[in-house]
Amino acid sequence: HRRVINAEKSEFNEDQAACCQISVRRREPALEEDQEWLILCSTQFLIGYYWALFDGHGGPEAAIMASNYLHCCIRQKLEEVAGAITDARPPMQLSGRCVCDSDPQFVEEKHIQVEDVVVGALENAFQECDEVIGQEMEATNQTGGCTALAALYLQGKLYVANAGDSRAILVLKDSIVPMSSEFTPETERQRLQHLAFLFPKLLDGEFTRFEFPRRLKGDDVGQKVLYRDYFMEGWGYKLVEKADLKYPLVHGHGKQARLLGTLAVSRGLGDHHLKVSDTNIEVKPFLSCIPKVNVFDFALHDIKEDDVLIMATDGLWDVLCDKEVAHMVRSFLAENRTNPHRFSELAKCLVCKARGQKRGHQWVLDDSREASYDDISVFVVPLHNRAKDC
Amino acid sequence: HRRVINAEKSEFNEDQAACCQISVRRREPALEEDQEWLILCSTQFLIGYYWALFDGHGGPEAAIMASNYLHCCIRQKLEEVAGAITDARPPMQLSGRCVCDSDPQFVEEKHIQVEDVVVGALENAFQECDEVIGQEMEATNQTGGCTALAALYLQGKLYVANAGDSRAILVLKDSIVPMSSEFTPETERQRLQHLAFLFPKLLDGEFTRFEFPRRLKGDDVGQKVLYRDYFMEGWGYKLVEKADLKYPLVHGHGKQARLLGTLAVSRGLGDHHLKVSDTNIEVKPFLSCIPKVNVFDFALHDIKEDDVLIMATDGLWDVLCDKEVAHMVRSFLAENRTNPHRFSELAKCLVCKARGQKRGHQWVLDDSREASYDDISVFVVPLHNRAKDC
Repeated sequence: HRRVINAEKSEFNEDQAACCQISVRRREPALEEDQEWLILCSTQFLIGYYWALFDGHGGPEAAIMASNYLHCCIRQKLEEVAGAITDARPPMQLSGRCVCDSDPQFVEEKHIQVEDVVVGALENAFQECDEVIGQEMEATNQTGGCTALAALYLQGKLYVANAGDSRAILVLKDSIVPMSSEFTPETERQRLQHLAFLFPKLLDGEFTRFEFPRRLKGDDVGQKVLYRDYFMEGWGYKLVEKADLKYPLVHGHGKQARLLGTLAVSRGLGDHHLKVSDTNIEVKPFLSCIPKVNVFDFALHDIKEDDVLIMATDGLWDVLCDKEVAHMVRSFLAENRTNPHRFSELAKCLVCKARGQKRGHQWVLDDSREASYDDISVFVVPLHNRAKDC
Repeated sequence: HRRVINAEKSEFNEDQAACCQISVRRREPALEEDQEWLILCSTQFLIGYYWALFDGHGGPEAAIMASNYLHCCIRQKLEEVAGAITDARPPMQLSGRCVCDSDPQFVEEKHIQVEDVVVGALENAFQECDEVIGQEMEATNQTGGCTALAALYLQGKLYVANAGDSRAILVLKDSIVPMSSEFTPETERQRLQHLAFLFPKLLDGEFTRFEFPRRLKGDDVGQKVLYRDYFMEGWGYKLVEKADLKYPLVHGHGKQARLLGTLAVSRGLGDHHLKVSDTNIEVKPFLSCIPKVNVFDFALHDIKEDDVLIMATDGLWDVLCDKEVAHMVRSFLAENRTNPHRFSELAKCLVCKARGQKRGHQWVLDDSREASYDDISVFVVPLHNRAKDC
């Protein structure tokens, strides 16, 4: 019931998708614990389901590598913590109990849940995958990077890990649940500026870390200008100096926002040797490969037949908002209740909607707004009966 | 109608309070703009109202200095941006208009509001005040630090700036509006660990930046242990090495949580030369003096007669939650509608409630829970008719 469809409007498609089952096996099963394991799971495996979208830049290579490797990294990191996920008494027990009553210097154990260990595994898997991509890139002399949005269904919970500007939402009968947040130069301005403040050499005298309302020019020098530094959510005034005329670390607004005039995202995989053009300035120190992970617990919700997870690259979200997508999802599924391929057809329908119609040299949406010129990839994952899949 | 009352249970009270009017005058009034100014404000001043609480540690000196200086810093920073607050056409206009239509390299101006400039002034004022305290401390050979919670009412909006673990809430007729968030070693774990990762020398080999579920001991070496690093919201496993036995950068839980085993807060003013005892490790690099500022716009709410702002140091919030305080506020004010001193008596009542009753050697609350042993300071600020005060 899941399909990914590309609009293929551009010459080279830089979006990639992956989707597979992830079988987690314990690495070092201790003999005495084997039986507990058998009770918990009728095989020696724990089965997870994985969907991921990667939006490449500077070529499709990083996105291709990520689509080949991220699930391996996730499987590996989950196997490393498999004991914590399945054992009744995992190492350094996960429950809230005090490990060592007798020793007062030992504080009460923190309330760590299985869920927290899966989140940690996903965080570590993204970091591992970034290293793998770095090695592969170096070995094959390739370049480029990609965003990564990965969903993992495991033991009744949906984990969505995001590094970049793709987006995942749950469209439920009566609500829309956001499952990701975007990481762009704008949303991460303070983190980026703070790094430049701590390590000014990273800017090599070519950029200013300050944010201004617009690009400054020579005759602004000596004038009062609004600015923001790394520690500010509000704005202040400063007198424009010559150094303020440099290109800003974070510049532009919305889809035009750029990190070092180069990248539209602040998190993702790859870009290990990316430099600002015509300079020696490395972009990678400013990039983070760590995803934010959101968790949705199926046990706390009454999942209906038409409830779905929608994952898509920015090509979709640039032209359609959450509400528009949710409206299309609900009406499409209601109108096609008996169609066995309705979920994959819905994915196709969403891509076609965002791609629009060709009118002369332009692509336009049904309502004549400009359509998306970016690659568009969409996953539609039905949530109902998900538990039975395991 | 505002009163601050201290429980005075400890020998030395380290809480301080301040409350005053802040008159903001334009510094460099240009002749031609003078008239606009006169239209906007019948005097040359813009009047704000200010309330602040400071919870000192390592002595009351920093809290005393902060209570003497923070409002001066705020006034100074507001005066520096007075043009932006009151002028119809402030420098680098605050509206969303494009400053320079003719020059395509200049992007559309960002939608900066007057509110953002006041927020920036508060952020800069806290930083300025921290510098003033540092100088004063050095000159007078004093030590210590304090948290700072400041509320500013200006032009129909309430700004609450917080650095530390005090708290402000609005108790409205039908809702409670949180106006601050707490900054403790626990809430800022990732920021603190990240600094230690970037600058390992700050720990001088005495601390580990990793978080563990409990303090590790010698015979844990070689075992698997749950841990978190700076980039993790989830938990992972690692094998315990000898270096992991060091004292953790962030250790303990809730009220016991400490930064470098030393401080219970991660933001505040002062502490410029604070060292971890018996070491050369400086605490200040890990501390931030920047507040988070929350804004409440009176124009968007129908303020009722009994609606109030409650500001209090952690002495109150340690034993009473938002809901308990709101319940007390509403019932007290309803029962004392005709009492002209009801707001100050409510403040007294809240402090007494949190201080509890002496029973033998213990102080207990009405419901026999343990009372607060900390200093307790409370402001009750009525919101109704606030606009008329100006």
